[in-house]
Amino acid sequence: MIRNEIKALAFDVFGTVVDWRSALIREGGELGEAKGLEVDWVAFAHAWRAGYEPAMQRVRSGELPWLNLDALHRIILDGLIEQFGIDSLNEAERDRLNRVWHRLDPWPDARLGLERLRGQFIVAPLSNGNVSLLTNMAKRADLRWDCVLSVELSHHYKPDPEVYQKAAQLLDLLPEQVMMVAAHNSDLKAAQAEGFQTAFVYRTNEYGPHQTTDLEPETSFDIVAKDFSDLADQLGV
Amino acid sequence: MIRNEIKALAFDVFGTVVDWRSALIREGGELGEAKGLEVDWVAFAHAWRAGYEPAMQRVRSGELPWLNLDALHRIILDGLIEQFGIDSLNEAERDRLNRVWHRLDPWPDARLGLERLRGQFIVAPLSNGNVSLLTNMAKRADLRWDCVLSVELSHHYKPDPEVYQKAAQLLDLLPEQVMMVAAHNSDLKAAQAEGFQTAFVYRTNEYGPHQTTDLEPETSFDIVAKDFSDLADQLGV
Repeated sequence: MIRNEIKALAFDVFGTVVDWRSALIREGGELGEAKGLEVDWVAFAHAWRAGYEPAMQRVRSGELPWLNLDALHRIILDGLIEQFGIDSLNEAERDRLNRVWHRLDPWPDARLGLERLRGQFIVAPLSNGNVSLLTNMAKRADLRWDCVLSVELSHHYKPDPEVYQKAAQLLDLLPEQVMMVAAHNSDLKAAQAEGFQTAFVYRTNEYGPHQTTDLEPETSFDIVAKDFSDLADQLGV
Repeated sequence: MIRNEIKALAFDVFGTVVDWRSALIREGGELGEAKGLEVDWVAFAHAWRAGYEPAMQRVRSGELPWLNLDALHRIILDGLIEQFGIDSLNEAERDRLNRVWHRLDPWPDARLGLERLRGQFIVAPLSNGNVSLLTNMAKRADLRWDCVLSVELSHHYKPDPEVYQKAAQLLDLLPEQVMMVAAHNSDLKAAQAEGFQTAFVYRTNEYGPHQTTDLEPETSFDIVAKDFSDLADQLGV
């Protein structure tokens, strides 16, 4: 149930707005073809994503200083290059592969849904991706954000509370005037704890056909939507 | 002369992209009409703008803690309300008047020029305005930025060097890959000192018909342009 006037929608990006898995598998396959590499790119994509949470945890714990997501992706990638035996890639190829995360495609409903929602609300990403990643991604995919919010602006990764507090502060809004939109329970629960309104969007294919997580909302969110089009419908835009 | 490949254009906003003076005079006049106030709104607009640099200097010197531009505008406004004898305004009216800076209109060439430039470059404001101010302004005026950069992200006001360094860092670009676009010599000189490329745009009517400052570039900038359309022409887009 929507409690108050919503002024802004803050979107999780990886998995919620864009499909990271398909692009990683596709670009990996193209690179493998070009370089004659024998790699299971599905396994590679999942392994890269699986390294994400532990890498952020190393920043949270203080083991690593603040590093943005491009830098964390590169640390994980360097490990995978060894693990998957693809160290024939030169530095330019490694750097280009690392930036595949800038070149992800939106889910089919995302662009149009965002455009509808933008007519009534401020729409912004609130992502673990760094500002340049989110900016490059939006430009390539023609996603029109009103501003780009990122954990890079608070030097805390989601779901740390500082991320949500900083976003509301930069938007000059009360937490309850902001609705967090995500396909992930942990993100929404953290936003809810900071007073945000919340919308769970089903992305049950984010991890492919055998996804086991985030198949359903795990608690009471303000909106549960099939996709961005349904979200726009439910918000009356 | 353009020295290297430019990836992003960073725009000064007040005076360069938007005409602050006309909106202040217009909205002041409307408020005066509605409330029966006898005020010289031209003098009021100029006095408000004249308070801007001293207010930022109070932050730079440490006399004030970090405060964003909405907060500084309000401090200046509170003084003007006394000076111009308009203390019949209630709190909601004062707050609304303070946010006139969110409701400025672009110069006639700005929107189309930006649209052309956005086809080839990342375009972002790099303004002393806070993130919410810039976001609200762009939404109202239909200015499409790729991301919103603000001094609020470095907690330093232009022309402090940290502003330009932070912008390049967030864009993940070398300073020379960024071109600062401004109608103000001081901003461009500071950007140049940090390694940015620079474009001076003539806005000789920013302060009205009797403007005495920034009538000409005071040093060698990479581009000198009549307006954003001329800037796009010179950048070959």
